[in-house]
Amino acid sequence: MAYNLLKGKKGIIFGALNDQSIAWKVAQRAVQEGAEIVLSNAPIALRMGELNKLAEECNAPVIAADVTNNDDINNLLTKTQEHFNGGVDFILHSIGMSVNVRKSIHYTENNYDFTHKGLDISALSLHRILQAALKMDVINEWGSVVALTYIAAQRVFPDYNDMADNKAYLESIARNFGYQYGIKKQVRINTVSQSPTRTTAGSGIKGFDGFVNYAEKMSPLGNASADQCADYCVTLFSDLTRMVTMQNLFHDGGFSFTGVTQAVIEQMEK
Amino acid sequence: MAYNLLKGKKGIIFGALNDQSIAWKVAQRAVQEGAEIVLSNAPIALRMGELNKLAEECNAPVIAADVTNNDDINNLLTKTQEHFNGGVDFILHSIGMSVNVRKSIHYTENNYDFTHKGLDISALSLHRILQAALKMDVINEWGSVVALTYIAAQRVFPDYNDMADNKAYLESIARNFGYQYGIKKQVRINTVSQSPTRTTAGSGIKGFDGFVNYAEKMSPLGNASADQCADYCVTLFSDLTRMVTMQNLFHDGGFSFTGVTQAVIEQMEK
Amino acid sequence: MAYNLLKGKKGIIFGALNDQSIAWKVAQRAVQEGAEIVLSNAPIALRMGELNKLAEECNAPVIAADVTNNDDINNLLTKTQEHFNGGVDFILHSIGMSVNVRKSIHYTENNYDFTHKGLDISALSLHRILQAALKMDVINEWGSVVALTYIAAQRVFPDYNDMADNKAYLESIARNFGYQYGIKKQVRINTVSQSPTRTTAGSGIKGFDGFVNYAEKMSPLGNASADQCADYCVTLFSDLTRMVTMQNLFHDGGFSFTGVTQAVIEQMEK
Amino acid sequence: MAYNLLKGKKGIIFGALNDQSIAWKVAQRAVQEGAEIVLSNAPIALRMGELNKLAEECNAPVIAADVTNNDDINNLLTKTQEHFNGGVDFILHSIGMSVNVRKSIHYTENNYDFTHKGLDISALSLHRILQAALKMDVINEWGSVVALTYIAAQRVFPDYNDMADNKAYLESIARNFGYQYGIKKQVRINTVSQSPTRTTAGSGIKGFDGFVNYAEKMSPLGNASADQCADYCVTLFSDLTRMVTMQNLFHDGGFSFTGVTQAVIEQMEK
Repeated sequence: MAYNLLKGKKGIIFGALNDQSIAWKVAQRAVQEGAEIVLSNAPIALRMGELNKLAEECNAPVIAADVTNNDDINNLLTKTQEHFNGGVDFILHSIGMSVNVRKSIHYTENNYDFTHKGLDISALSLHRILQAALKMDVINEWGSVVALTYIAAQRVFPDYNDMADNKAYLESIARNFGYQYGIKKQVRINTVSQSPTRTTAGSGIKGFDGFVNYAEKMSPLGNASADQCADYCVTLFSDLTRMVTMQNLFHDGGFSFTGVTQAVIEQMEK
Repeated sequence: MAYNLLKGKKGIIFGALNDQSIAWKVAQRAVQEGAEIVLSNAPIALRMGELNKLAEECNAPVIAADVTNNDDINNLLTKTQEHFNGGVDFILHSIGMSVNVRKSIHYTENNYDFTHKGLDISALSLHRILQAALKMDVINEWGSVVALTYIAAQRVFPDYNDMADNKAYLESIARNFGYQYGIKKQVRINTVSQSPTRTTAGSGIKGFDGFVNYAEKMSPLGNASADQCADYCVTLFSDLTRMVTMQNLFHDGGFSFTGVTQAVIEQMEK
Repeated sequence: MAYNLLKGKKGIIFGALNDQSIAWKVAQRAVQEGAEIVLSNAPIALRMGELNKLAEECNAPVIAADVTNNDDINNLLTKTQEHFNGGVDFILHSIGMSVNVRKSIHYTENNYDFTHKGLDISALSLHRILQAALKMDVINEWGSVVALTYIAAQRVFPDYNDMADNKAYLESIARNFGYQYGIKKQVRINTVSQSPTRTTAGSGIKGFDGFVNYAEKMSPLGNASADQCADYCVTLFSDLTRMVTMQNLFHDGGFSFTGVTQAVIEQMEK
Repeated sequence: MAYNLLKGKKGIIFGALNDQSIAWKVAQRAVQEGAEIVLSNAPIALRMGELNKLAEECNAPVIAADVTNNDDINNLLTKTQEHFNGGVDFILHSIGMSVNVRKSIHYTENNYDFTHKGLDISALSLHRILQAALKMDVINEWGSVVALTYIAAQRVFPDYNDMADNKAYLESIARNFGYQYGIKKQVRINTVSQSPTRTTAGSGIKGFDGFVNYAEKMSPLGNASADQCADYCVTLFSDLTRMVTMQNLFHDGGFSFTGVTQAVIEQMEK
């Protein structure tokens, strides 16, 4: 079902890898809703993933960018402006990677070079994109930026390791840059805190399956899917949510405000 | 601009008084988006207000209900089911009144009969409506309930008096009934915490104008209007936000996460 | 171990029933730390409980008061002032009761007369006490008020029923009256959100044992005991915490910021 | 007034520079309360500041450590263990510096090398200290770690720049390492979110004076002083707060939960 919610809007989608990716679904839904998009991901992700399939489907150019590299970001934004012959109305940031997690290092034994690297990719990348966008005036007035995050920014999920700290930092950037971009250009910036989702990124986390099951049992509506997340992002890109900014929005079937469920209590009694 | 976001959906709108009311705007926008609605308010509000004009415009029946009276609520829900020949998909609760505020009593001198009365109208009314709706199975699966609230539930705004406590209680009901209705019928329940808005209700609060100006200066995007609130509510009633539940959603131009603005600092230096 | 933290201080302890009660432990610890106290509880609780034993141990008068009755509260405060020949420095509010819980009514079927009654006892009582104390100038400058609460005010614990809403309301009163008493008399007001504790009150909640076990597994330090809660309250009554006010302070071994533990994940995999 | 609250306890105090520093006051108060301490700061701070005066007063060794350097931290902890002939019971982390702030760069124009540097000093340093301490088993069971933070981690204070993001990251480390150290050694880790304080560090922030005045007017009890912060830290190091962990504790005269005050409203009307 499509509503033309994004008719005439242009956007950039960061982070689609394959058809499990939330960013992939957001790209599809944005186009269904009438938007034109540019797709971006890291050079290595472009080689590993299947982004060209999505690009074809969405009639969207793919522009590679290492988001830890200012030149790459400038190049991406310049080419995007050329492509659209103007600015964009929305941006999705769905980017995250922890070297410590990848190497199965325990939180109490992290390597700080890896920590800096993960922060750069997962959180500072949002600041870099916004800083370049503001300087080049890439985002149109009343534009909307959404970055995906996870509730580990608020509460401890032990296996999430330093991605928890990265997400806390990311949400802080969203608030702080949301203030700055808001007063300058009425651009809003929010994070969407999504249920654990079986993506390529998620599956890298130790004990992820057990955790997805726990979250399912702890969410009155169950875990939110990637498709549902895409639906929600579309509303946040639309003109109907213009005054929502600097927020962290839980999209999780109620997990975030559930202390315990009957299903979990029963499991505990086994 | 309309998108048919609520095409085929039915809903009940509580609390429209006149064309300043947020509920009034939500009713209009819901109908524009393709919904059919029933309007309800207290008998006295029907006499004072201009709800019939809205009813005509929206082609909607008006059914009076004192929301502190279970029989009135049952009657309203029964008639609504008859009118729609079935259940509803959304409900807006925009109801609040404090006798202590009306009588300009100071928070430290409140009259507890007035306090109970205000709680009954402003907060317990949501529980009463939901309890009756669940018993009579009035809300369709994946339905959406929104109650309007204010950030005084989280932080102190001295002149808001016991409405602050009422809103805290209201938000707690939204969470707790959101859990119950979620596991039983996949119905979601959220509160929208709106900027101070110049409605008939708002204007009853002492020093309200000064406060609206302060909020305007403390919000990077400025205060959200009643029209914008209606836009936002429409997204929450739509199928695009099905997994958002038990949340308190700030719709306030960024006020809630702004510690201070340059504009306020400058004013402080005067 | 005692430190003379409350030497020369006077206080009122509400809600001690028997030696399981948190209030009982707080009374003992306050006296150990050098305070003089007055004990109060409802007439019926005085008959059921063993407060006289504690009174003797603490060399403290017992003054009955139904905290839903303004006259009783005025009488208590008057007698307390007479007893101490002056004001008090601290107050503990450890009072809560839900008729709906007692009668094992489900949250979705609550009786609203019971709801009002429970709110009056569990939450409005704090307002009544503070309102009377302010009027009669009972609390000395830089005094400290602590009310006990539970995390159900923030997240849903289904069997806690309307006590969740009552606690949300109680915490709101603590904030709002904390503001008022703070600007007038530098009195601070906080709530302590304690681990589930096996008291007479707690044991009235359905499935309480299962829940205590869950909380134990979800708390990195385990559940906090009543004795430990008393220790913590003593610090909040002392002069070392004068600038802490309007806060909800979790005393729960880390439960509140733990999303999941290894122990719970393992249990989920069984 | 001293209570012997820390009798027999040993601790490390990071970050005292001169007698304006909060860490300086905490060191003095800890010693007054019976603790023995080790003082540490960066080599450059030792040259600039007056730490030797404090060391003499407190009869404490000074051990230089660049907290971005693992070897320095290991050396500090080894020497501390030798000095005390055993572990420590408490640690104060009062360390923060943003190169972007120092150079008066605007948040929207930050230099990312500076950002990484500031994060390393202000936030990752806590992780480095805890990681080394856990590996070397430096903190005794039921020990207590406190890191100082600021409410810019939750809400935007525009001139605070990337220190806001650093503090958000710091608080996340406190939670996550608090979990890990809690389950392994019952060590608790909390952050104290202090009122803006006129220290050498604070005075580096643009418009700091105007902001301190604003905070004063927005806090029902006024801003908390460095001395009062030291009092509060002492309670958190004592055995009376053993079950408080993974918390961010506001010590701010009520600022954090005040939406507006009469004093600010009046100023806005000028």
